[in-house]
Amino acid sequence: MARRAAIIGGGVIGGGWAARFALMGWEVRIFDPDPESERKIGEVVAGAARALPMLYEAPMPPRGAITFHATIAEAVAGADYIQESVPERLDLKHRVLAEVQAHCLPDAVIGSSTSGFKPSELQDGAARPGQIVVAHPFNPVYLLPLAELVPGANAAPEAVEKAKEILTSIGMFPLHVRAEIDAHIADRFLEAVWREALWLVKDGIATTEEIDNAIRYGFGLRWAQMGLFETYRVAGGEAGMRHFMAQFGPCLAWPWTKLTDVPEFTDELVDLIAGQSDAQSGHLSIRQLERLRDNNLVAILRALKGQGAAAGLLIRDHDDSLRQPLEETRPMVTVRRIVPVDWTDVNGHMNEGRYGQVFSDASEEVMTHVGADRAYIAAGNSYFTAESSIRYLAETLAGEEIYVETSVTLGEGKKLRLWHEMKRAADGAVLATCDQFLLHVSLETRRSCPPLDHVRENVERLARAHGA
Amino acid sequence: MARRAAIIGGGVIGGGWAARFALMGWEVRIFDPDPESERKIGEVVAGAARALPMLYEAPMPPRGAITFHATIAEAVAGADYIQESVPERLDLKHRVLAEVQAHCLPDAVIGSSTSGFKPSELQDGAARPGQIVVAHPFNPVYLLPLAELVPGANAAPEAVEKAKEILTSIGMFPLHVRAEIDAHIADRFLEAVWREALWLVKDGIATTEEIDNAIRYGFGLRWAQMGLFETYRVAGGEAGMRHFMAQFGPCLAWPWTKLTDVPEFTDELVDLIAGQSDAQSGHLSIRQLERLRDNNLVAILRALKGQGAAAGLLIRDHDDSLRQPLEETRPMVTVRRIVPVDWTDVNGHMNEGRYGQVFSDASEEVMTHVGADRAYIAAGNSYFTAESSIRYLAETLAGEEIYVETSVTLGEGKKLRLWHEMKRAADGAVLATCDQFLLHVSLETRRSCPPLDHVRENVERLARAHGA
Repeated sequence: MARRAAIIGGGVIGGGWAARFALMGWEVRIFDPDPESERKIGEVVAGAARALPMLYEAPMPPRGAITFHATIAEAVAGADYIQESVPERLDLKHRVLAEVQAHCLPDAVIGSSTSGFKPSELQDGAARPGQIVVAHPFNPVYLLPLAELVPGANAAPEAVEKAKEILTSIGMFPLHVRAEIDAHIADRFLEAVWREALWLVKDGIATTEEIDNAIRYGFGLRWAQMGLFETYRVAGGEAGMRHFMAQFGPCLAWPWTKLTDVPEFTDELVDLIAGQSDAQSGHLSIRQLERLRDNNLVAILRALKGQGAAAGLLIRDHDDSLRQPLEETRPMVTVRRIVPVDWTDVNGHMNEGRYGQVFSDASEEVMTHVGADRAYIAAGNSYFTAESSIRYLAETLAGEEIYVETSVTLGEGKKLRLWHEMKRAADGAVLATCDQFLLHVSLETRRSCPPLDHVRENVERLARAHGA
Repeated sequence: MARRAAIIGGGVIGGGWAARFALMGWEVRIFDPDPESERKIGEVVAGAARALPMLYEAPMPPRGAITFHATIAEAVAGADYIQESVPERLDLKHRVLAEVQAHCLPDAVIGSSTSGFKPSELQDGAARPGQIVVAHPFNPVYLLPLAELVPGANAAPEAVEKAKEILTSIGMFPLHVRAEIDAHIADRFLEAVWREALWLVKDGIATTEEIDNAIRYGFGLRWAQMGLFETYRVAGGEAGMRHFMAQFGPCLAWPWTKLTDVPEFTDELVDLIAGQSDAQSGHLSIRQLERLRDNNLVAILRALKGQGAAAGLLIRDHDDSLRQPLEETRPMVTVRRIVPVDWTDVNGHMNEGRYGQVFSDASEEVMTHVGADRAYIAAGNSYFTAESSIRYLAETLAGEEIYVETSVTLGEGKKLRLWHEMKRAADGAVLATCDQFLLHVSLETRRSCPPLDHVRENVERLARAHGA
């Protein structure tokens, strides 16, 4: 039987929680006094239902039912997990938690989405303080894995363990925050950056867009994969964290940012940080860390390139500027590239699907060359591949340079047939061949149709030249 | 003829600049008094030569030569662009810049990698202050596109334009910082976060690893694609930036972080920020921005999943926990999944290469089922695909649920042949078929060989059951 979660307070955060639980197979009961809550949460759930399953190769569990309830009592009845996401007012949170505890199972976990309050403040005066913890998520809750789990001194160890198990089971990472402080951990950074950003805008140094670009084209990319300290450990080079701190520690005493009260830079502090960094990353050499960092950055940048977004859009534009027109040799060299790290699979070599992508790229080059380019596609025509037969003759590894030689073996009306040979640049070895049959289609009817005259003429000319 | 760049000062930053210029076809001349510089820069260039070309689908320009020179005079002779990356001491930078200007072309651009000094400080006392600008990059310079371009009041407009053109041509994003301040823009955020992180470690609240996890599993992922303000605009929901500021602005006055001097929260400041945010993102509705954000996050998370890194490793582990054993139906359902946004191409549908990947995943499920699982592969055996023929029968769109039915049509010795039909879950329509022939291989010799007994027996049993 599905486990049951109760969501107290909807909105973007509560809705995100509801979506994550339901998509992971939990029955979800919602209490939110807002008359619009069903619509609002429905929209969040619709967005989550579209995006979250895309992260998984495995089939998702059957989706749990989401129901709306008129009272907290009804919503929390029989729930294993209860998440409170009401507005950030302590008196309100106290009233809600009291009502929850009056009706919920004594061994249910009650998590609070509070970004600022300490668990002891929430537990204060509670009937059973031991079952209340902070479980602070990040928007969008249905995609970002982080939940800061702050039990404080009063939460029961069983409640903490149960919270960890449940949060992990719905795909989150419960970061156990051992000491309670205002705003936990992540929001202290967010606040520090937000404050500095407000000063920069107020003082006319930078606009909101310039600030966003300063983040997403630079350190934001680093932080998506290694965070702060491991990034700096790599930057310190072979001498590691201690060297980095010796080099950059003193900068903190300079009058850069608006507020410069800094911890004293004692040997003890350096030892503490260098020691923790060793414990975290010391099993890897700096060269290995650099390699991991670069692989992650390449993969992230290529992912953004695929979406035409942020730094990926810059690279896509730059890529276009590097593109050379196809030369009409026989055969034509349609692709010449390095195999990126995101193309390898469990066997450590290029996945067979990527061979297909290379041949797809090769045919796209031919299309562009004959006039079936992006503008032609935007105007409503294209070629779709109907059939392809690939022979895999040798393995291909990340970092290898490959090229594809392509001949037009048939070019007649709406039919286009290509013969591709993919070769290793180092020795000319044939890595794979592909016999590919394409049909010209109307993107409006999604049915085959003859190409426009200039495209047809180019295809026919190439087919003759290649001795089809 | 290749354009020429001079790199003054090697190390991680100078080496990164050298690599980026050379890989983009520039001739690069280096001056660095460190006797180890050739080895050190060589290592940076080797790392860059592996990673940077992976970002591009287009062929890279022929790589430019990198040479090392004994004097600044020799290194800067005839250079179009000169990048200074010597240690952060103003007297040293002044001496180096004077020497550079004594020998360089008067219309060359001289960029400084300084993270802290203002351009006016560098230009102070220079022979030709107009040709000196700050061009502050981010490590690794060969992958991250951001360069803060700070001309100050004294740089010549032609030098700024030329710097923009050159930086863009080597794949960077020159962020024109209009007002000079200490540490420009990005490093002010880095400093604010670094300072707060030091307090958290010093006070025993969190370890370096916990802090890194708080960043890379949460807001670090957001910042890689939208930065700060656009993220908050989306968080504000339909009411937008003004609503977000009304809701979260006051938090700043709370005593969360160590230093709480904040700009006064006037209507003017709110108007300024809301107005800039409208100019930046106002052409998109919040729903559209949410969609873009989710697409980017899905793509980034999937990229990290492919690398088994950071948040991607969490998702991979969670994915494994969702996996169900294959049922021995006839045919077997080997894949059931949602088509993610990173699988579509210029035609707006699933790229033909991804059909191949789905069938590759399907065969991997069969392999796992017959005992050729990850442990079997780790022990040195696997199946490689030798040939596949795919027929593309219908388009497949992102977000659609698909499944694959697989039959074993041949299972004899080292030979394994599979017949896959990929179907749309909504209506059962056949989207594609694949006739796939695999050979069992030794991962040591990379040659075909018979499978181990338990695998062979399972394959033969399935082949019989499927009536091969």
